Amino acid sequence: MRLATLRTTGTTVAVRVDETSAVEIDGFADVGALLAHPDWKAIADAASGTAHPLHDIADESWAAVVPAPSKIVCVGLNYRNHILEMGRELPEHPTLFAKYPEALIGPHDPIVLPGYASHAVDWEAELAVVIGSKARRLSPEQAAGAIAGYSVLNDVTMRDFQYRTPEWFQGKTFEATTPFGPWLVTPDAYSVDTDIRTEVDGEVMQHSNTSDLVFDPAALVSYISQIVTLHPGDVIASGTPGGVGHARKPPRYLADGSVLSTSVEGIGTLRNVVRVEG
Amino acid sequence: MRLATLRTTGTTVAVRVDETSAVEIDGFADVGALLAHPDWKAIADAASGTAHPLHDIADESWAAVVPAPSKIVCVGLNYRNHILEMGRELPEHPTLFAKYPEALIGPHDPIVLPGYASHAVDWEAELAVVIGSKARRLSPEQAAGAIAGYSVLNDVTMRDFQYRTPEWFQGKTFEATTPFGPWLVTPDAYSVDTDIRTEVDGEVMQHSNTSDLVFDPAALVSYISQIVTLHPGDVIASGTPGGVGHARKPPRYLADGSVLSTSVEGIGTLRNVVRVEG
Repeated sequence: MRLATLRTTGTTVAVRVDETSAVEIDGFADVGALLAHPDWKAIADAASGTAHPLHDIADESWAAVVPAPSKIVCVGLNYRNHILEMGRELPEHPTLFAKYPEALIGPHDPIVLPGYASHAVDWEAELAVVIGSKARRLSPEQAAGAIAGYSVLNDVTMRDFQYRTPEWFQGKTFEATTPFGPWLVTPDAYSVDTDIRTEVDGEVMQHSNTSDLVFDPAALVSYISQIVTLHPGDVIASGTPGGVGHARKPPRYLADGSVLSTSVEGIGTLRNVVRVEG
Repeated sequence: MRLATLRTTGTTVAVRVDETSAVEIDGFADVGALLAHPDWKAIADAASGTAHPLHDIADESWAAVVPAPSKIVCVGLNYRNHILEMGRELPEHPTLFAKYPEALIGPHDPIVLPGYASHAVDWEAELAVVIGSKARRLSPEQAAGAIAGYSVLNDVTMRDFQYRTPEWFQGKTFEATTPFGPWLVTPDAYSVDTDIRTEVDGEVMQHSNTSDLVFDPAALVSYISQIVTLHPGDVIASGTPGGVGHARKPPRYLADGSVLSTSVEGIGTLRNVVRVEG
């Protein structure tokens, strides 16, 4: 099953995305509100609201799949090949940092950058893990059952802000710069062993496989749940593989007009045009 | 004016804390809900709900002043003397990281630690800045007007988790370990040039003055507002002065039974007993 959030006039609605149409799940404004209901799966499965043919839905109608999660926990240094090629040792514990929900945009929205934050803007394709039930001090086995599904997120990063102080956070949470979607795919319909890639203006920049993750989704949920409670709709951005622009020689960054395409096979593709203000 | 959140049977209520009593502000469940109303100041000023004599209010009745802010942005390396004594240069930009609202507890609540996170638990007394109106790309002058007031927070930190990876975040956001309160003092009733101190079991551990801040509250609000929108009730923990346990020789940490007292002159004192589970 695939779930998404559609923009309608002045509001949004949760939809089940079937093969040819998106079916409204009445009573739920977005996938976050749906996941907060303990019976979300049965409700989504049975939904029979207004059906929108997929070919009639404009790109800009897709919202971030969960538009306002209470938490987005990001993971650094989590693709094995990338860590080893950088000459680092595999980590014993996941590296975590936060991103605020104001950073999120829809899967086809423009990434609009203020001039002062447009000088070193980089891509980070990530498999997003979405929580489906409260997770607190769970074992990895229990944690697997708390995952509602998977989606695609690009942790677009202002490298200058990321590295101007000892903490990455301020380069990671710029308003309206993180595309997220287009939909959530439930675990029964998805295998976490799949290609992940970024293209910029049609050129492949990152290309890896999620089987290369050091800490898999269940391990991440379990680890984070020892620290803080995860709630339905919360998001874990599970880290990015090699191929980011900042590590290239010479470095490559996004600029006004760049077209950023981010895919996870079996889920879908984000496509976002970069705009620099002013 | 002083504002706080009181626990009542099964719920909470925002109160105005007068000299001898706490007066309920009807219709607002906590200070966060109150600040979300554009006329919060006039409403609080005019409130005439049930009055609770202060000497009748049990310590455990005080909740975190804003129990569930949408954001808690923490600042590192912000006390001049401490930075210089550590042999570092004064920073050009504030160091920022996040803490989730699940970390917050009331000003007199016990700090209950799981055994696995009890081995290197440290204190960080901080002046908390609470936002009173939406702040987005404000100058420092404008930012001053977006501050609802000030409170006290101890950014209790698990040093082992803080330093086991490159990012501090996971040592900073443990569930129910950050005392915050006892109340918010509005800017008209408070001068940001005042003593800040931590005592552990009656021994002074940190003692400084907020005039030593490199980035003052308005500068912090302005800076963060260039990155992301701050909303009413959001909290900035403005950094801690020297004297933390981890930097002592030998290091000192909190343990089961430790009594942690955190004060900012002109606001008030947090008093929390540490408990280690199991």
